[in-house]
Amino acid sequence: MITEIPITEFQDRIRRVQAELARRGLDALLTFGSEAEPQFVRYLSDHWPAFETAAVLIPVEGEAMLLIGPESLTYAQVRSKIPKIRQILEYRESSEPEYPGKALDTFTSVFDEVSGGKGVRRLGIVGLPITPVPVYEGIRAAMASGEIVRADDILIQMRMVKSENELALLRQAFRISEKAVEAVLERIKPGMMEVEVVGIAQEMMYRHGAEYEGHPLYVLSGRNSANAIGRPTLKKLIEGEVIQLNIGARVGGYSSSVGRPVVLGQLSDEVRGLLQMGLDAANKTMEIMRAGVEAAWVARTVQEFITERGYGQNILYGPCHGLGLMECEHPWMETNSAYRLQENYTFQVDSFLYTPEYGARWEDGVRVTMDGVEQFSTYRREIIVI
Amino acid sequence: MITEIPITEFQDRIRRVQAELARRGLDALLTFGSEAEPQFVRYLSDHWPAFETAAVLIPVEGEAMLLIGPESLTYAQVRSKIPKIRQILEYRESSEPEYPGKALDTFTSVFDEVSGGKGVRRLGIVGLPITPVPVYEGIRAAMASGEIVRADDILIQMRMVKSENELALLRQAFRISEKAVEAVLERIKPGMMEVEVVGIAQEMMYRHGAEYEGHPLYVLSGRNSANAIGRPTLKKLIEGEVIQLNIGARVGGYSSSVGRPVVLGQLSDEVRGLLQMGLDAANKTMEIMRAGVEAAWVARTVQEFITERGYGQNILYGPCHGLGLMECEHPWMETNSAYRLQENYTFQVDSFLYTPEYGARWEDGVRVTMDGVEQFSTYRREIIVI
Repeated sequence: MITEIPITEFQDRIRRVQAELARRGLDALLTFGSEAEPQFVRYLSDHWPAFETAAVLIPVEGEAMLLIGPESLTYAQVRSKIPKIRQILEYRESSEPEYPGKALDTFTSVFDEVSGGKGVRRLGIVGLPITPVPVYEGIRAAMASGEIVRADDILIQMRMVKSENELALLRQAFRISEKAVEAVLERIKPGMMEVEVVGIAQEMMYRHGAEYEGHPLYVLSGRNSANAIGRPTLKKLIEGEVIQLNIGARVGGYSSSVGRPVVLGQLSDEVRGLLQMGLDAANKTMEIMRAGVEAAWVARTVQEFITERGYGQNILYGPCHGLGLMECEHPWMETNSAYRLQENYTFQVDSFLYTPEYGARWEDGVRVTMDGVEQFSTYRREIIVI
Repeated sequence: MITEIPITEFQDRIRRVQAELARRGLDALLTFGSEAEPQFVRYLSDHWPAFETAAVLIPVEGEAMLLIGPESLTYAQVRSKIPKIRQILEYRESSEPEYPGKALDTFTSVFDEVSGGKGVRRLGIVGLPITPVPVYEGIRAAMASGEIVRADDILIQMRMVKSENELALLRQAFRISEKAVEAVLERIKPGMMEVEVVGIAQEMMYRHGAEYEGHPLYVLSGRNSANAIGRPTLKKLIEGEVIQLNIGARVGGYSSSVGRPVVLGQLSDEVRGLLQMGLDAANKTMEIMRAGVEAAWVARTVQEFITERGYGQNILYGPCHGLGLMECEHPWMETNSAYRLQENYTFQVDSFLYTPEYGARWEDGVRVTMDGVEQFSTYRREIIVI
């Protein structure tokens, strides 16, 4: 059982980036990563920032560099698969401590170093939507008359097709998530707080070797189950209401989520109808996915399937989103998507239907194969009444 | 027992911001918040972004506004203490979904709305170090020839002196953290993974009503205990090594952390010496803190106390940092700090000493009083050998 991506795979990723930089006439690539959005830094270095932020700088030729803040050196030395590490003030904590007297590198000095003194004239930048203003201004100032080009697609394309090691980590993450769901279903009862259920899941995930949660866990009951985005509260669970569980472990950087609506005690016919519709839609999605089909066709087919059954007004989005280092990443699968599924794309099949009073989400991970999908999670894909 | 800040206190905070805007000749204040850095948005609205980001816009006169992304409306309606909510594309998820056809507001439309059509000419911005580039560019474009002024200090000053409600939430957060430390010390044993200990703490924190962890918990053993910043791993605990626990619950937005070094089995004299020095330094810090003294004098006195005992080379920083909505916030307390302690400032007394092989951190929360400190956590402030 592997628990992390081997160093050779990180080196291979960096070589592939360099080949693409050469093709595009870019001198270097610069990513950004933070505690909650580590994906681009983790994909290239395995470093996962905490409190401070970080970046990976890859020159078109030569050695890549991990850029970190003033306080993360010993931590990064343990984590980083990129041995060359430099510290820059811009990656400090958000409260902007000043570290007077501490010797640090600058964007100018690292651009100079990675380019062998030639300077970086054309820089590809990845993660601009998460890059804070002071970091960008620092880069801008060091580029003088140089050009900054958005290059997110280089890493997005690479990350979409999963390797055997990535798949092994995803499978392990889902196995752990299923064990956590099982523990929750054994212990959940009326009167518990939503957050208390989260605690049961957390204890089980870590016991089985999760490195962290894959996303802030959902235990959303009653009216809260209608929220596409939510957080568990101190609200107590009540018999008869929908309790939406989304339990996801993270292993070696790779996230998962298993979504199950649960009812304690009685279930009305109306609620049962919506839950069954969601489950049928999830099953339909998995049935029609395979390498070669158009993503938009899958999305349209599932939407029509739901609409024909009279639940069209309960759709928010769907039926899938990409899965990997983030629980929700490229590619989205929507009725206007312009790509075909490929082998080893991984998705969350995310079937969410809602009314003003409640909602329900079935969510499981899958890998696209030549003739269908490999299901990462299958535990109790049924209407669960306890 | 309160579990959240009452709405009247949020309204009062907004009025205080408006008075300061008037004094400075600013037309409005705009903050930013994300999942991992929610502090400025939560302080003014109680909204805590997830997946998407958010902001609070306060005009110098009139009603404040919560700005959110396209998917967070039902969630924000439940959470926000500010009733007026607007949705802007720039606060979307970092993977930049496009939401074709969805009607959204823009920075131009909300600036127009809050100013009663006069427009925002001088805007105070809070949280620039966490504001992503596309958000800032959106604001910039809507300001035309207007001026953007950094105004972090308005909220930093307000947040430094805690109200009775804030103190009640902090006390509750520390009570829960102490219960989690107690559960960990009852169950920790050699052969457990670091992350497994995190799971025990999580389960106990949520059972006692934590809304979330106050920070990513530390269980850092052996060599990892020397890291100022770190994350728990799958490493198994070994007898005789230092195991650094930092366990912190979050209640109503307010964070805590209780730090204790623990040793299973035997303890060498050398390790005992460093642990005792750290504990003595923490106690010394609490002894000399009180309203009216200079922060720099406290920092210098503690540094001299440690240096006289021969441990000067083991200091990284210290001896305190501010505590509130973030586990680490303003004010820092360092030898160059230029302020005096005031009643109801709250600090983490954070006594961290390290060697190349191991480190140890004692950490407890305190409130500054007229004649000393109120200790938020006191559980087993002693050398813990199990």
